[in-house]
Amino acid sequence: MLIVPEKLIADLVSAEDAFAAVEATFAAMARGEATNFPVVREALGEGRQYGFKSGLDRAGGMLGVKAGGYFPGNMARGMTNHQSTVYLFDPESGRPTAMVGGNLLTALRTAAASALSIDRLARPDAKVLGMVGAGHQAAFQLRAAARVRRFERVIGWNYHPDMLPKLGEVAAELGLPFEAVALERMVEADVIVTITSSPAASLLSAHVGPGTHLACMGTDTKGKQEVEPALLARARLFTDEVAQSVSIGEAQHAIAAGLVREADITPIGAVIAGLAPGRLGQEEITLFDGTGVGLQDLAVAGAAVRRAVERGLAASVEV
Amino acid sequence: MLIVPEKLIADLVSAEDAFAAVEATFAAMARGEATNFPVVREALGEGRQYGFKSGLDRAGGMLGVKAGGYFPGNMARGMTNHQSTVYLFDPESGRPTAMVGGNLLTALRTAAASALSIDRLARPDAKVLGMVGAGHQAAFQLRAAARVRRFERVIGWNYHPDMLPKLGEVAAELGLPFEAVALERMVEADVIVTITSSPAASLLSAHVGPGTHLACMGTDTKGKQEVEPALLARARLFTDEVAQSVSIGEAQHAIAAGLVREADITPIGAVIAGLAPGRLGQEEITLFDGTGVGLQDLAVAGAAVRRAVERGLAASVEV
Repeated sequence: MLIVPEKLIADLVSAEDAFAAVEATFAAMARGEATNFPVVREALGEGRQYGFKSGLDRAGGMLGVKAGGYFPGNMARGMTNHQSTVYLFDPESGRPTAMVGGNLLTALRTAAASALSIDRLARPDAKVLGMVGAGHQAAFQLRAAARVRRFERVIGWNYHPDMLPKLGEVAAELGLPFEAVALERMVEADVIVTITSSPAASLLSAHVGPGTHLACMGTDTKGKQEVEPALLARARLFTDEVAQSVSIGEAQHAIAAGLVREADITPIGAVIAGLAPGRLGQEEITLFDGTGVGLQDLAVAGAAVRRAVERGLAASVEV
Repeated sequence: MLIVPEKLIADLVSAEDAFAAVEATFAAMARGEATNFPVVREALGEGRQYGFKSGLDRAGGMLGVKAGGYFPGNMARGMTNHQSTVYLFDPESGRPTAMVGGNLLTALRTAAASALSIDRLARPDAKVLGMVGAGHQAAFQLRAAARVRRFERVIGWNYHPDMLPKLGEVAAELGLPFEAVALERMVEADVIVTITSSPAASLLSAHVGPGTHLACMGTDTKGKQEVEPALLARARLFTDEVAQSVSIGEAQHAIAAGLVREADITPIGAVIAGLAPGRLGQEEITLFDGTGVGLQDLAVAGAAVRRAVERGLAASVEV
């Protein structure tokens, strides 16, 4: 069995690798060749959360599980609060094949999904990127988005405005001017990425202009919410996995309010695989509800293992 | 993180270790200090099954998952069909602490549960052990049962009688006479262990005499069945986890037939923890429905890690 530790991931897996891996697994899901298994997510007490996301990708030859969670006491002890590890198995024999540090991979696979949605659904001439949220993950989102469109400037909003300058530095790295704005000014954006951890909508329908593409990446559990449900009713809806979108994703609220139906939501994999159309016109609002599926984790972990093997960096242990 | 490979387990973990570990975790479950998380079990196609059993034991400081399954093509390639690995995490920080080969541990923890039920529920003067089933697991069951009662002889039945001589050899190792019998003769047994993989009842109520203890260890999924539901209606019922007993355990059929109710089934942990009585009289039939829970796997894996550390045999890897 191969071990690819967390500290190697940054050097091994590029945003391009993550994009290609997530693209392939989303397409396999749409073709019925890959399946996410039911998610286990449990409260451990004192704010700690732990769970397992798993799946099988027959096309990619991947079987595995990401074990991970949120441990709010870690920061004080010099560790990140999010902790996860991906375990891969041979789908033919069930033998463990690899163990891969999953913390950075989680950020990379989430950013890759959002970038993929921008690549397939945003207007080709998109110029202004709006960022709602400025935490740890927002930097990954901004970098990944900048790979797929020639943005000319970035506008950003965050609940805690003091975190925006750091996101501005990431924009500067990319050679893009950055401006902190009120939510009302998001109407200037051609693409909006929401990446917050919020219990109530920040972005309202009135803040979004026609022709915009939104990637809503923050809502991955019951009770979280980033955007006003009326916005979903105005938009054509896409997601990674419909079952998750309607239950734990951004669409949960619009579904509950009766504003959209499950049948209105298209898996992005169907667009990638050529089974469903993407954007239908310049004025259409498209919205990708990114909930995060186990197969994304397996896909980027698989990419990490391949890179580690190519470069002779994967340690082998007997199990 | 520590690695304890499969090949070390036989030398590291004794039946006594497994018994003590399973006893402690069953008691913690009964006291509400340990919880099994929902089980994931998925068909992969071509008869392959894969899944995850996980849980948290606050008393034992254990958080983890057993990933494993059944791969019928393995035997032809020189591997066992059952493949599993246990992954342990620090419940405070979520960091991975150990990875432990889970194949032999699964047999040990199953045999420990059955022995535990015999220890707490069988008559102290039990003399005759009846074995229904003679496959790979039956040998573990027989050895574990012989640790907790002074049996004088063993009688055995198997659907394929040609497998019984091998079980007879295990009895001989233990110094016990062995006789292959028809199911009707199980009425001679004071303790009966059923460990088959059967879609229909083999052992009927008429085959069981008053005062017998039964450990029904083979039914761990919907549709399997080892004993006639009428036998459950005659017996006081115990299990590892009530929710599993009524849904995937032996009790599923008696529940469906309306012969017993969920409230009739006592967790064995409650007996261990002194929260519920065990056997109430010499004539009572007691029946333990062993379904197999994730916490059993974590408990024996924890024992393996402790033994490996004591003996300097645990390899450490960075993750």
